[in-house]
Amino acid sequence: MPDKNKPLGGEGLRGQSAGSTALCTVGKTGTGLTYRGYDITDLANHAEFEEVAYLLLKGKLPTQSELDAYKKRLMEKRGLPTSLCAVLENIPADAHPMDVMRTGCSMLGNLDTELDFSEQSDKTDTLLAHLPAIICYWYRFSHDGVRINTASSEEDSIGGYFLDMLFDHKPSDLHTRVMHCSLVLYAEHEFNASTFAARVCASTLSDLHSCVTAAIGTLRGPLHGGANEAAMAMIENWTSPDEAESTLMQMLAEKEKVMGFGHAIYRESDPRNVLIKAWSKELAETDEEKTLYAVSERVEQVMKREKDLFPNADFYHASAYHFIGIPTKLFTPIFVMSRVTGWCAHVFEQRENNRIIRPSADYTGPDHQNWLPIEKRN
Amino acid sequence: MPDKNKPLGGEGLRGQSAGSTALCTVGKTGTGLTYRGYDITDLANHAEFEEVAYLLLKGKLPTQSELDAYKKRLMEKRGLPTSLCAVLENIPADAHPMDVMRTGCSMLGNLDTELDFSEQSDKTDTLLAHLPAIICYWYRFSHDGVRINTASSEEDSIGGYFLDMLFDHKPSDLHTRVMHCSLVLYAEHEFNASTFAARVCASTLSDLHSCVTAAIGTLRGPLHGGANEAAMAMIENWTSPDEAESTLMQMLAEKEKVMGFGHAIYRESDPRNVLIKAWSKELAETDEEKTLYAVSERVEQVMKREKDLFPNADFYHASAYHFIGIPTKLFTPIFVMSRVTGWCAHVFEQRENNRIIRPSADYTGPDHQNWLPIEKRN
Repeated sequence: MPDKNKPLGGEGLRGQSAGSTALCTVGKTGTGLTYRGYDITDLANHAEFEEVAYLLLKGKLPTQSELDAYKKRLMEKRGLPTSLCAVLENIPADAHPMDVMRTGCSMLGNLDTELDFSEQSDKTDTLLAHLPAIICYWYRFSHDGVRINTASSEEDSIGGYFLDMLFDHKPSDLHTRVMHCSLVLYAEHEFNASTFAARVCASTLSDLHSCVTAAIGTLRGPLHGGANEAAMAMIENWTSPDEAESTLMQMLAEKEKVMGFGHAIYRESDPRNVLIKAWSKELAETDEEKTLYAVSERVEQVMKREKDLFPNADFYHASAYHFIGIPTKLFTPIFVMSRVTGWCAHVFEQRENNRIIRPSADYTGPDHQNWLPIEKRN
Repeated sequence: MPDKNKPLGGEGLRGQSAGSTALCTVGKTGTGLTYRGYDITDLANHAEFEEVAYLLLKGKLPTQSELDAYKKRLMEKRGLPTSLCAVLENIPADAHPMDVMRTGCSMLGNLDTELDFSEQSDKTDTLLAHLPAIICYWYRFSHDGVRINTASSEEDSIGGYFLDMLFDHKPSDLHTRVMHCSLVLYAEHEFNASTFAARVCASTLSDLHSCVTAAIGTLRGPLHGGANEAAMAMIENWTSPDEAESTLMQMLAEKEKVMGFGHAIYRESDPRNVLIKAWSKELAETDEEKTLYAVSERVEQVMKREKDLFPNADFYHASAYHFIGIPTKLFTPIFVMSRVTGWCAHVFEQRENNRIIRPSADYTGPDHQNWLPIEKRN
């Protein structure tokens, strides 16, 4: 829970401009989040994820024929290279799934190296096509002992492809549509920490895979990408809304952190919440198990009443993903599959008008120290 | 060549503080570079690299028994895990060596995961012990078809161990001493781009391997770690000082970039240059081939005369490494083996007093755009 009264500036570069972008506004217009000027509500309600990826990466919404060609190209690029599979098979089942994503992306950089920035768009397409397969190949091999064929799916979307690889059957239309919404919501968010890490990396004119690898590692942190997993870990313990409320009240009394609420930039609400919440509700209505949604709603009410805090994008993602049947440990890797579009778009932008990102620091260490030969030290 | 007249501030966060550090001053006191208050000249002339690593990571220069125990621990940690070797064997010979380092570090994160920050010191030691072996194992396997035993060396220093693994014989004392100086000079440099990337990653409370992986990818860029390789690629073409001068004059007339000169922070000289230059000179005196050093000196004179620019730390590193027999493509990986100490020390420091690094951006994109159904787009 961020402190609403914490002043801007100082540590963390909060409120300080670190460059310019044409990709995104957060908390400025309309419901508070736009990608290239389009409201997130419009995009989440009307667009497939691939349309949004196209918008971010190529600068405009695609025509139908452009979208068809783009999806066809992404489908054709599926199928992990053999040596990437070999690497994934060497990663143990108890590894952190974000370490798997980071290593898979880094390994891909050895096999599909970006030799020149003119290749950036093509390398990005390959990354988009491979990231769902990287996590599913490792997961299915290490957990089920199965070597999946990552080129076999007929699903024409990244969300559908992910579900098909994970569950080994065609996903329902509802589940695919939820994935579209989720991937759209997570695609881009201005200079968040992982995107900023990608831009710092890009500013040395490093390659695309280095930038995305850096971003994955940054997203891995519990203050960034891990919130939906943390929310799930909390709500899955509760068997009724009343139990949720009493335990939550206790947590608040003990000043425990409650993940999935509040935001570093948004002050009143997170515009993504209402969009994913609607899907969570619809999934709950079609599911036998309805407790999780009821518990989530009660937590939202209590947090509003007690702390005046709102759910952010992550909170209802937890129940939505759970209703689809996605294992909790794969929640943050889905974030990667989506945000890679924003990361890469920011890398392109950084390269367009680059200056190496090299800030200064306030020195707090000792003044000049005289050299002391080792035998005189203690 | 950075433009001396470029104003501070604006893009690239130049001159803006992004936090505080007790580790390093650049361009402030003495000859211009200090690690925890100690002058770089004292450290480079008197300390082994492991003493400096200890200073950066543990906050003080070690006593003899502390240094002995530290070196012993680093030696005991040698020997790459089998599955890390398997990953390295899957990386092709024409891969970028920095992609190999990045992938090796990321893979290690799956096998030796930092589960809690209390483990940070131990994980850092393992990284220090493994990084030289990662690059040498891949290089020798992919280039020579040899599987080296990464646990077999009796060399008690990281520099000596690297040369032993690479050449498969005990290095000379001179070569080991040059490695110490080189590793000391590259160990730390305040909020340079790779270190800043590591801190951005650390600020989400991500794990140590994510931070170092991000830093390696950032160092890979030609505006950062690649300068000594680029300097080598330039000077190795010239068979005499006169040829160097005439070609260099032509390059300057055509406004080509000359790598290894000037610096983003230092304005008058780079204090590291004179230290590595002395070793390059001594190596040249013991080598049959003396042209490279003579060429380097001439390039330095011409750059001073024509552009008033000074050689930075990278320029004489090129000839020094070359005299030792190190392949040019492994120059930047050596930088990693050294700078990992600074990166990890900065990660520790960021964790001590953390706030997520999340700057703002100036928006330059379109105003509100109305949603347009796909059939109406063009």
